[in-house]
Amino acid sequence: MAVRIDILTLFPEMFDIFNYSIIGKAKEKGIVNINTVNIRDYTLDKHRKVDDYPYGGGAGMVMAAQPIVDCIKKVKENNDGKVIFLGPRGKTFNQETAKELSGEEKLIFLCGHYEGIDERAYKYIDMEISLGDFVLTGGEMACVPVIDSVCRMIPGVLKTSESYTEESFYNGLLEYPQYTRPEYFDGERVPEILTSGHHENIRKWRRLQSLKITRDRRIDLFKKLNLSEEDKKLLKGI
Amino acid sequence: MAVRIDILTLFPEMFDIFNYSIIGKAKEKGIVNINTVNIRDYTLDKHRKVDDYPYGGGAGMVMAAQPIVDCIKKVKENNDGKVIFLGPRGKTFNQETAKELSGEEKLIFLCGHYEGIDERAYKYIDMEISLGDFVLTGGEMACVPVIDSVCRMIPGVLKTSESYTEESFYNGLLEYPQYTRPEYFDGERVPEILTSGHHENIRKWRRLQSLKITRDRRIDLFKKLNLSEEDKKLLKGI
Repeated sequence: MAVRIDILTLFPEMFDIFNYSIIGKAKEKGIVNINTVNIRDYTLDKHRKVDDYPYGGGAGMVMAAQPIVDCIKKVKENNDGKVIFLGPRGKTFNQETAKELSGEEKLIFLCGHYEGIDERAYKYIDMEISLGDFVLTGGEMACVPVIDSVCRMIPGVLKTSESYTEESFYNGLLEYPQYTRPEYFDGERVPEILTSGHHENIRKWRRLQSLKITRDRRIDLFKKLNLSEEDKKLLKGI
Repeated sequence: MAVRIDILTLFPEMFDIFNYSIIGKAKEKGIVNINTVNIRDYTLDKHRKVDDYPYGGGAGMVMAAQPIVDCIKKVKENNDGKVIFLGPRGKTFNQETAKELSGEEKLIFLCGHYEGIDERAYKYIDMEISLGDFVLTGGEMACVPVIDSVCRMIPGVLKTSESYTEESFYNGLLEYPQYTRPEYFDGERVPEILTSGHHENIRKWRRLQSLKITRDRRIDLFKKLNLSEEDKKLLKGI
């Protein structure tokens, strides 16, 4: 059965981005079912307004609780999955959360806009996810990579199971350098080891490259690694 | 003059996402000029292929250097901005980088796909940005929030300059709770202080809420703060 995702947003058209490439194909194959629901359709305001001035003053507009809560209640009639809000106060998204969420059969994503949402809507939210330490114009912009990252972990979305075992962050390492044809490009040859046909040496070379790149660029990730005896040997050999 | 952004991608249609909301308006007003360029148009392969098997074996396909490099060279004829690659080995994106990039007049973003790009294309890249520690189906999914975050910092994109001074991450704090009408919702009243009209007390209450929320949810951010004397007093009063 397809994984069902409902996205609650003021800008449903933005999610046409999922009609292309890998997620587009997963939708076509019926592996994921991504629906959008327009929060504005749930406002009781006669001018279809969904936002208002903040109590206590301040710049910007706050999304009112009523349309959000009524929209969540309606969607829950067909989707009993977790309600996930994309917001700056949430836990920072990472591969572990992507993997965890990819195991769910149903998910609801809520995208906020303007300066924030009325605090009283949080009662209806199960989980808040932050994309990172930066500000966006709306939750949609965070929802896009989060859903992409979750969906690509769903079995059947990628062609082979291998294709996500050697990637950056999957095993806490950054990826080794990749090369493809032609052998010479721009005066530079592919590293000889990669054309040697010696699989064991290639594996070791790639492992060492990953270790070095991770140590040089992301010491925070490197420190979390449990280095094997082989890893230590490879690094000593530099 | 408009800030010019060229996006080099295999999926130009994905960036229709910038036709809506705040960025859509900024484009209409001529504050930002976001162009897409299809990397596939630059391949010399007769089947219009842009990827190939990795040297040394392994799952997945690698994007070839030639179409990427020729595409960058062509775009550089009209855009002498930094070439930014969205990739997992880059520096993790944050508000500081968003602010820095929002000061540039021209920018080029390169979106990779498949298992990575041929290492020899990196010579033409000035900066690599990672969205966070998770894997995406393509650089497009990272490019969307990065461009959004950069563009919203460009003067004129948001309505008032105030609207980005009190937001999460701008001053290293998470945002205080926001409330809007009605006064009662779902049996819950807006905190009385926000309807008191006492601006100084409201300011202090909000500051304390921000400090508390940051301490509870993001101790890493809290530890980086330079607490003022007032902050310390507010926190002691809890």
